Amino acid sequence: MNFSEKSLILHEEKKGKVEVISKAPVKNREDLSIAYTPGVAEPCKKIHEDKENVYKYTSKGNLVAVVTDGSAVLGLGDIGPEAAMPVMEGKAILFKEFANVDAFPICLNTKDVEEIIKTVKMIAPTFGGINLEDIGAPRCFEIEKRLKEELDIPVFHDDQHGTAIVVIAGLINALKVANKKIEDTTIVVNGAGAAGVAITDMLLNMNPKDILLCDRSGIIYSGSPNNNDSKEEMAGKTNKDNRKGDLKAAMVEADVFIGVSAANAVSEEMVRSMKEDAIIFAMANPIPEIMPDLAIKAGAKVVGSGRSDFPNQVNNVLAFPGIFRGALDVRAKDINEEMKLAAAYAIASIIEEKELKPEYVIPDAFDQRVVEKVAAAVGKAAIETGVAKV
Amino acid sequence: MNFSEKSLILHEEKKGKVEVISKAPVKNREDLSIAYTPGVAEPCKKIHEDKENVYKYTSKGNLVAVVTDGSAVLGLGDIGPEAAMPVMEGKAILFKEFANVDAFPICLNTKDVEEIIKTVKMIAPTFGGINLEDIGAPRCFEIEKRLKEELDIPVFHDDQHGTAIVVIAGLINALKVANKKIEDTTIVVNGAGAAGVAITDMLLNMNPKDILLCDRSGIIYSGSPNNNDSKEEMAGKTNKDNRKGDLKAAMVEADVFIGVSAANAVSEEMVRSMKEDAIIFAMANPIPEIMPDLAIKAGAKVVGSGRSDFPNQVNNVLAFPGIFRGALDVRAKDINEEMKLAAAYAIASIIEEKELKPEYVIPDAFDQRVVEKVAAAVGKAAIETGVAKV
Repeated sequence: MNFSEKSLILHEEKKGKVEVISKAPVKNREDLSIAYTPGVAEPCKKIHEDKENVYKYTSKGNLVAVVTDGSAVLGLGDIGPEAAMPVMEGKAILFKEFANVDAFPICLNTKDVEEIIKTVKMIAPTFGGINLEDIGAPRCFEIEKRLKEELDIPVFHDDQHGTAIVVIAGLINALKVANKKIEDTTIVVNGAGAAGVAITDMLLNMNPKDILLCDRSGIIYSGSPNNNDSKEEMAGKTNKDNRKGDLKAAMVEADVFIGVSAANAVSEEMVRSMKEDAIIFAMANPIPEIMPDLAIKAGAKVVGSGRSDFPNQVNNVLAFPGIFRGALDVRAKDINEEMKLAAAYAIASIIEEKELKPEYVIPDAFDQRVVEKVAAAVGKAAIETGVAKV
Repeated sequence: MNFSEKSLILHEEKKGKVEVISKAPVKNREDLSIAYTPGVAEPCKKIHEDKENVYKYTSKGNLVAVVTDGSAVLGLGDIGPEAAMPVMEGKAILFKEFANVDAFPICLNTKDVEEIIKTVKMIAPTFGGINLEDIGAPRCFEIEKRLKEELDIPVFHDDQHGTAIVVIAGLINALKVANKKIEDTTIVVNGAGAAGVAITDMLLNMNPKDILLCDRSGIIYSGSPNNNDSKEEMAGKTNKDNRKGDLKAAMVEADVFIGVSAANAVSEEMVRSMKEDAIIFAMANPIPEIMPDLAIKAGAKVVGSGRSDFPNQVNNVLAFPGIFRGALDVRAKDINEEMKLAAAYAIASIIEEKELKPEYVIPDAFDQRVVEKVAAAVGKAAIETGVAKV
């Protein structure tokens, strides 16, 4: 039986994956009077006196909403809020299993930017954090930006930043293995959707020599007739020489290729045209831009992908559980660039220098050390940048 | 230590009461591939093909949102969404502990009727049912009415109908004990908020001789300058002789008094003015309209209250868990009058005729037989009235 068949059986047998249980016993009248009326009036009053007490007496501080509009689910696209539910439940249980965060799926019956923002703001009193998930670009950018501005709890679009953080972690280690310095590298990012833009933004904070961001029309450049607002903005931050051309042209003499695009977008010839000891992260799912073994054959030094059957799997589960654990632990009101970068370095640091090799630049998804290390680094960065409340 | 002190300690130690756990194991790569990507794409596709499959492959069918705006919480009033959280969490765990319903608190950052309706509609794809809680009258009437019309999942305002169902259950048994027929009884309902209106509406379906609904201004009558829309509508359905006067006047020669109003609103003298073998449900919390022992002393035959330290406690926990269990089990798209009445009769029937006595007309809140019996009766009524989908 393959994973699809096994998944269908699991989902039908269990009728979904999340369950809401009680942390307090309710077995008799005494329990009822303490967990519910009349006793419960007392924590209510304390919170009414000082709203901050909601973190002391309720679950809010450990609750994260996994919010989607079902418009960009996995590789399936715009399948709607109901069909997105299995993914959101999956995300919720990963939060719990990896980081003891209580996460709950919220599938929205709208794709309108303003309605999504409004709804999340309306339900925010229940939650300590908001994880946006599988919301299509460019709407996801506006939604995240506005919610970050208008809410005092951390908001994080995992498809953007989760992927970016893990790729950056892998890149930090890959550069060591390939003996390259970030200041000297030209990086090609293929795919200008949620993940591509976020990866590029994170990379910019690390000062590479240049980044060439590509979409289906090739290298994105200032003034291109294909640019929407998001792409025009990205063009201004990348492609220093305002190069034009297709992906193939972009990859000539590049040091790093990062793909969040489409199956088989990269040929062996294109890898051969790159600088020596090239680094490739080919994350198209389930079929990468180039199969890892072919990329190695064509001369790449380090190759990562989204696949668990090849080395260096870029798996978001290395990032989001620890990010939220860290943010919630210090009551961070935001997840800022410094926190994301701290998370990437924490993930990278799991692998000691002496263990580093081309096939091992990203830790295993089930490496037990990751969450704790990421959470600690994220919490520290939150405190240092003044966004932590405790 | 009293309940307030114990409650504060419990809430601080546990940091709230709800926890979201996984029904599926995620211990290794195989688990991850089945519960999450790539396997999870398969249930997503099945739901995308046929939206009804969301009940087959996700938790939706067992998830209930406990929704409040924090405007009418316990006896505390309008304390806001954050301060309402301990009550909503309490409600959620009662759903789980009594009826294995997975309920989740949703505290809304608005008191606007349209915004509440809109938000609940937006988040509805996640849930199999909506339990409205502690939303002030008369806004609660419009919100419930509209959501019932506009959603295809059951919507139930517990402060209205939960209380009503348990009172009616008690009344059914109390009438037997007092040897009265409903057709011959005059019933005074004091309090024209959420619960008072719902009780009156349910009683009207049982054809009593007359009902006198009272508020702070006395008996509600057609054309009263004190009437809002809700009260004018109620005046048209009650008070057949269009009587005017205060509560004291209303109670003269009445058979039944049902109070959802204020402490000490009823004197012994007022009880003495009622018909012989009067029935009293004095549910003001924590101090009833008249203390049960005083009412008995003044000649009442059967007395119930909201208190657990007197006989016949009217406790909503006898109703809402079984109501939702029954509605979810048959995928009812509504909770209609027939289902509510079936729930009341089911609760009443727990006490056999030979066990009935003035001190025992309402079963104990922890009577294990209640949920199953209520769920079965509610499910049956849903099927018979054509609102069940399975």
